[in-house]
Amino acid sequence: MELFFSDDIQDAQVRLDPDESAHCVRVLRHREGDEIFVIDGRGTLCRCVLELADAKGAWARVLERTHGFGAHPYHLTMAVCPTKNLDRYEWFVEKATEIGVDVVAPVIGERSERKVLKTERLRRLALSAAKQSLKGAVPQVAEPVAVRDFILSAPAEALKFICYCFDDVERIPITSVLRPDAAAGRPIMILIGPEGDFSPEEAALAREHGWVPVQLGPSRLRTETAALTAVTAVYLFSL
Amino acid sequence: MELFFSDDIQDAQVRLDPDESAHCVRVLRHREGDEIFVIDGRGTLCRCVLELADAKGAWARVLERTHGFGAHPYHLTMAVCPTKNLDRYEWFVEKATEIGVDVVAPVIGERSERKVLKTERLRRLALSAAKQSLKGAVPQVAEPVAVRDFILSAPAEALKFICYCFDDVERIPITSVLRPDAAAGRPIMILIGPEGDFSPEEAALAREHGWVPVQLGPSRLRTETAALTAVTAVYLFSL
Repeated sequence: MELFFSDDIQDAQVRLDPDESAHCVRVLRHREGDEIFVIDGRGTLCRCVLELADAKGAWARVLERTHGFGAHPYHLTMAVCPTKNLDRYEWFVEKATEIGVDVVAPVIGERSERKVLKTERLRRLALSAAKQSLKGAVPQVAEPVAVRDFILSAPAEALKFICYCFDDVERIPITSVLRPDAAAGRPIMILIGPEGDFSPEEAALAREHGWVPVQLGPSRLRTETAALTAVTAVYLFSL
Repeated sequence: MELFFSDDIQDAQVRLDPDESAHCVRVLRHREGDEIFVIDGRGTLCRCVLELADAKGAWARVLERTHGFGAHPYHLTMAVCPTKNLDRYEWFVEKATEIGVDVVAPVIGERSERKVLKTERLRRLALSAAKQSLKGAVPQVAEPVAVRDFILSAPAEALKFICYCFDDVERIPITSVLRPDAAAGRPIMILIGPEGDFSPEEAALAREHGWVPVQLGPSRLRTETAALTAVTAVYLFSL
């Protein structure tokens, strides 16, 4: 099953942009009358019939809508500091999308070696991973913000976890905080630091603002591996 | 903390091979009298003092041994069919090593597009990932065998799980089979099929030989993502 994406879905009509049109008509050789499947990136799958097989601007008629297509039973925001090696961050975005994440928020810590991150390529990766893994919703990739700003802007109702080794606090394994909470329906936010970890000030600020220190077990994980392990934990504990 | 590897550790003496010697002496500029840490790849960390800083053949004296360094509380064999794109399989080996796996067994299914796999590079990746994530044990990368042969050769005492969608069997979520079992101390084996999945004959053979059908939740995961999700499940349920 091949999915197309469109951000131009009217009541009964779906327009594909030039890229998707070319892929649909030139690469996959779809013709008028073919059945195609189009996601809106916000969770809805449209079963359509192709009305105009134009490689520059195809359009289709909606036959049927499926809401929450490929959805997961939680809302997860992963706030992850960019890795030095961008491939590793891109890999995280692809894999987290496959498993199930709602928002990837790149955050810049005081100790982040990488202070800037272009999000356009990450958004394309998230889109193609969502299509490949048959999801109607494409994870949102936020613009990078400072860790402090992210901590302060997090909504009060969210379950907020920070992976950081506080000297003075015992960290709960993420598995035990998820057991009761995953089902509770509150949005979950998980903060993952850079290679150099958070600064003590950032960590203290997070605790003051209700972020719960958690740990991901004894293994020493790279930033992107820790981030994916956290996504997988939320996913598995929602089963 | 930088780890070196040696397969030539006598009672009190550790010899580094030319690669490790060059890295130790030429790259990291260690000199006689420096303290270095060497793993034997089977779980033991040796704290040593460098006696001969020779970039072609360095050796060190063992001061202290730590057994089970960076070990995990389970024994996991991942039998995973090679992916078409080898990068994805290499990525799996690196990440699974970081999180915690004991054996990676490439298995060739009837529907595997890739029938051959060179294991040498995978072994190097496992070694460098183990060193990077501070583990004394390096996962073993087995030579590829046919899925059928692997199924038949699996030890009776192992907990054996197969990720396959049987038409006629309800598959248990891997989380519920791990809850009671992870702690039981039995070796765990998980079988992950190729992009084209197992053949019905392979799947039936597995069931006949005590492999329990499990599922990894609703998300549609690529082969390497499914494999890493299974490793992460075993890891998290051992916390």
